[in-house]
Amino acid sequence: MKLSKMHLKTLREVPAEAEIPSHILLLRTGMIRKLVSGVYGFMPMGWRSVRKIEEIIRQEMDAAGGEEIHMSAIQPAELWQESGRWEAYGPELWRIKDRNGRDFCLGPTHEEVFTDLIRNDVSSYRQLPVLLYQIQTKYRDEARPRFGLMRSREFIMKDLYSFDADEAGLDISYKAMYDAYDKIFTRCGLTFRPVEADTGAIGGSNSHEFTALSEVGESEIAYCEKCSMAATVERAECVDAKAQDDVDMLPLEEVNTPGTKTIEEVADFLHMDAKETMKALLFVTYDAEGKEDGYVAAFVRGDRDANMIKLVNALGIAEHQIEFADEEKMSAATGCVGGFTGPVGLHDCKIVVDSELPGLKNLCAGACKENYHLKNVNYGRDYKGDIVADIKLLKAGDPCPVCGAPIKHARGIEVGQVFKLGTKYSESMHATYLDENQKEHPLLMGCYGIGVTRTLAAVVEQNHDDNGIIWPMAIAPYHVIVTLVKDNDPVQKEMAEKIYDELEKAGVEVLLDDRKERPGVKFKDADLLGIPVRITVGKLASEGKVEYKLRRDADKEEITAEEAVSRAVEIVNKERRG
Amino acid sequence: MKLSKMHLKTLREVPAEAEIPSHILLLRTGMIRKLVSGVYGFMPMGWRSVRKIEEIIRQEMDAAGGEEIHMSAIQPAELWQESGRWEAYGPELWRIKDRNGRDFCLGPTHEEVFTDLIRNDVSSYRQLPVLLYQIQTKYRDEARPRFGLMRSREFIMKDLYSFDADEAGLDISYKAMYDAYDKIFTRCGLTFRPVEADTGAIGGSNSHEFTALSEVGESEIAYCEKCSMAATVERAECVDAKAQDDVDMLPLEEVNTPGTKTIEEVADFLHMDAKETMKALLFVTYDAEGKEDGYVAAFVRGDRDANMIKLVNALGIAEHQIEFADEEKMSAATGCVGGFTGPVGLHDCKIVVDSELPGLKNLCAGACKENYHLKNVNYGRDYKGDIVADIKLLKAGDPCPVCGAPIKHARGIEVGQVFKLGTKYSESMHATYLDENQKEHPLLMGCYGIGVTRTLAAVVEQNHDDNGIIWPMAIAPYHVIVTLVKDNDPVQKEMAEKIYDELEKAGVEVLLDDRKERPGVKFKDADLLGIPVRITVGKLASEGKVEYKLRRDADKEEITAEEAVSRAVEIVNKERRG
Repeated sequence: MKLSKMHLKTLREVPAEAEIPSHILLLRTGMIRKLVSGVYGFMPMGWRSVRKIEEIIRQEMDAAGGEEIHMSAIQPAELWQESGRWEAYGPELWRIKDRNGRDFCLGPTHEEVFTDLIRNDVSSYRQLPVLLYQIQTKYRDEARPRFGLMRSREFIMKDLYSFDADEAGLDISYKAMYDAYDKIFTRCGLTFRPVEADTGAIGGSNSHEFTALSEVGESEIAYCEKCSMAATVERAECVDAKAQDDVDMLPLEEVNTPGTKTIEEVADFLHMDAKETMKALLFVTYDAEGKEDGYVAAFVRGDRDANMIKLVNALGIAEHQIEFADEEKMSAATGCVGGFTGPVGLHDCKIVVDSELPGLKNLCAGACKENYHLKNVNYGRDYKGDIVADIKLLKAGDPCPVCGAPIKHARGIEVGQVFKLGTKYSESMHATYLDENQKEHPLLMGCYGIGVTRTLAAVVEQNHDDNGIIWPMAIAPYHVIVTLVKDNDPVQKEMAEKIYDELEKAGVEVLLDDRKERPGVKFKDADLLGIPVRITVGKLASEGKVEYKLRRDADKEEITAEEAVSRAVEIVNKERRG
Repeated sequence: MKLSKMHLKTLREVPAEAEIPSHILLLRTGMIRKLVSGVYGFMPMGWRSVRKIEEIIRQEMDAAGGEEIHMSAIQPAELWQESGRWEAYGPELWRIKDRNGRDFCLGPTHEEVFTDLIRNDVSSYRQLPVLLYQIQTKYRDEARPRFGLMRSREFIMKDLYSFDADEAGLDISYKAMYDAYDKIFTRCGLTFRPVEADTGAIGGSNSHEFTALSEVGESEIAYCEKCSMAATVERAECVDAKAQDDVDMLPLEEVNTPGTKTIEEVADFLHMDAKETMKALLFVTYDAEGKEDGYVAAFVRGDRDANMIKLVNALGIAEHQIEFADEEKMSAATGCVGGFTGPVGLHDCKIVVDSELPGLKNLCAGACKENYHLKNVNYGRDYKGDIVADIKLLKAGDPCPVCGAPIKHARGIEVGQVFKLGTKYSESMHATYLDENQKEHPLLMGCYGIGVTRTLAAVVEQNHDDNGIIWPMAIAPYHVIVTLVKDNDPVQKEMAEKIYDELEKAGVEVLLDDRKERPGVKFKDADLLGIPVRITVGKLASEGKVEYKLRRDADKEEITAEEAVSRAVEIVNKERRG
């Protein structure tokens, strides 16, 4: 492709709305274009890279036994009502009506549609397993779309659904997908880590997130360098503090603690460690229709934080069904007192107690009375939980739940997820098969997603420098750029075109920068666009030489045009498959 | 691919909902699956054929200078308000709201989005022309989705938009697309005809529809076998009857014509030819907000029919803004009398007169009085039109507007359209460029669509017999099917697998029917699926022979396995590109 013929508009300035490198660079290279908040279009080069990622995914899905199909984005409400998610999914589900007032949604995911398909098609164990996938546009009406392709409202996803006869079959499908994901993200040039993940609102029994490591990522991972433990912070189990079975309960004692609203303040005031106190978190919850459902007080040890995902899972509700409570209203209803709330004296609210608190003795908690705390609060004697569960956040430095070594934290971008759904959908939607003995069983399902457009952004996030993108060969929009320094110099022009033609003939995807621009502009654009190999045809052309440079390296070399072509062909063929 | 591993469910029965061959066969082969009315999914084989059509389109668009991009399906209302189509488009535009109540639509087409893109990117004549396209999912909330993929609510379309500096440039872009369409539909194996088309609500100056000839098509074409005239019936010009300049006007005469409500009845009763009468058609129109706007009476010669497209164009409104009037209400307001309406005596309504009526003398028309007609009605003396325009339908047998030979009619499926938009969008949306002298001009645009999924259906409509589909090689889901007659016969099995392996190695896309099914079922499915080449491995295997058959031919041949392989490879390589 000749750049003079290409629709390309690069930007020198950093767009005001963009905060993170991938968003900035994808906009500056003109690879993506914002239409409205969270909605992007892909320009020629951006779309080439997206299609290369799609092709890598397609190859690995096919190799792993997947068959590609294509279902619609519009989905009838009836299917979501059957699975129970029409109400449960929350405002991210983009609900629409047709001209007759019938309810539909724009699919954020396709469990219902694929389950419906299979319950009509599959009747016998002989037809199993079935692994179907699609690469298709998805919709999520995000409250806060941000970071460009990282969190957008219309995006491209690969989703595969597996249907097996039994757990053993599901294990095989899950493993096949896990391994395929490993290959896909490796081929895309990502540094990533598969981590155990929460199974959340979608339901199910087992899941891994494939997380591209990046400081700008929205996922927080806890991992252990000693053993192989790696999990999202939401999912990570915590080791409870050792129970103080040998400590005696002391008498409950009310103490005046004027103005000590935070754990730090009260611990300071009473000369205690935060570990000897209890922290209260106050919430209001909503039912499926969005009506207020009641109050919740959650308690963790004073030095801990609550893990909202664990909390909503313990409560059996979805994330959008809980919010921090209005203190004044909650106080009138339950007796809580902002900054001085403890489990003793609370009424008319659900009390959730972290799993380690029952084992700890003589803690300090709020007295539900302005400027007062209670000392020596003990579980069983002074308070009880409606729910006792692990609701605490695993922090860096906490002991690894597997081996006890100190946990490390990292941030990452969730680019893929594999998920054992089990029979959640097949039971609610009656997707069954008959075994050898004509006995009916629900199908065992798995679902496996890859954010295609998010993967593009993650690759840029991990592969750039101050001057622009540094594409891995396998998903670079073009492999080689031939920069013609003086487009009006006949020697340079002839050599540049010859190199361009020869590379094209060799099957290399090559750009020729033949624009009427200053050399500085051309070099800047070549770096910005991040094409892996640059061959510069300038003054040295008269000696038959060019400058050869890999985008990822600082070195440049002056070599003959012939050698540049053969080196380029060699490196492209070596790396193009990823 | 081995059929035993494939997700395939063919149907023996004709699905009740399907009326036309392509719909029946695409459902029976299991290539498509209905989700709800007008919404379909594509199963593995159907999706393969769709992707092959996409690839043919992509190759020809690239060859014609197009660059592929990908814009979102959701489009903000603001852009449609700018172009004026938010109100004008009618209920087919699928309007949606996001969680904040902001208006969007699901794009049925992308003129606004591409114009917006280009007005931000292009400033100089040096950047022109620009030809951008996408292959993308489109939405149209059809009142009556039908015939499967022919008229559905979610479908795949290729749309290219061209941007040129002047008419000469637009002519070149238009011609390049016209020629590319010719190649695309030829490669897809369609019998088609490019016909002049109406430019309708989208506006613009010049258009051709590419119509696949088919009795089930919704487009009616008028064409001339003597000259090259071909146009949609809506668009086709009509030759006015010769003006009767030498005939004298006779005195207006009221005659009693009891019970003669139709043209045939009144002509019979008065012993006249229908050509000597005038036909009235009564309508109500609506404004852009859907409020009643007034009444329209349209008049054509008694033997003619009105052409609704010409009528709405003459009125300057959109198709959904007009309906047949409620006679009783219209009568009260305008004085019309059902069955006895003529132009004399009508009041408070817009009168549209077909262009040939002013030239015709002494016509018979309704008297706007129950059971009475008027004889010798003459334009100018007795009535006038608010609008005089060609609003008549060109019928088979009418003279060709170009050469005068009798016109023929045919039906067809509109699979593509090329369209000169001119400055319609660039003016309303201010998409301009500066010429050599820094003078600003609006861009000249064209738009060029192909219904990808509709093309699939059209190919099936033209290529089938009683037993199933007969795929053209270029878009067949697989090229060859190897039918293993007895899957438990080791000699047959070994030979079938050898042939399968050899074909795969030769790059042929091959199916091996290794299912545990009766031979009759396998033969029926092979015919139904329409794979171009069938190699049957049965009893003759012990002699080293197979049965070789092309789906499109009746003949079968018994030849050696080696010859079958080499013949299959030869025909596949010859025909696969289309």
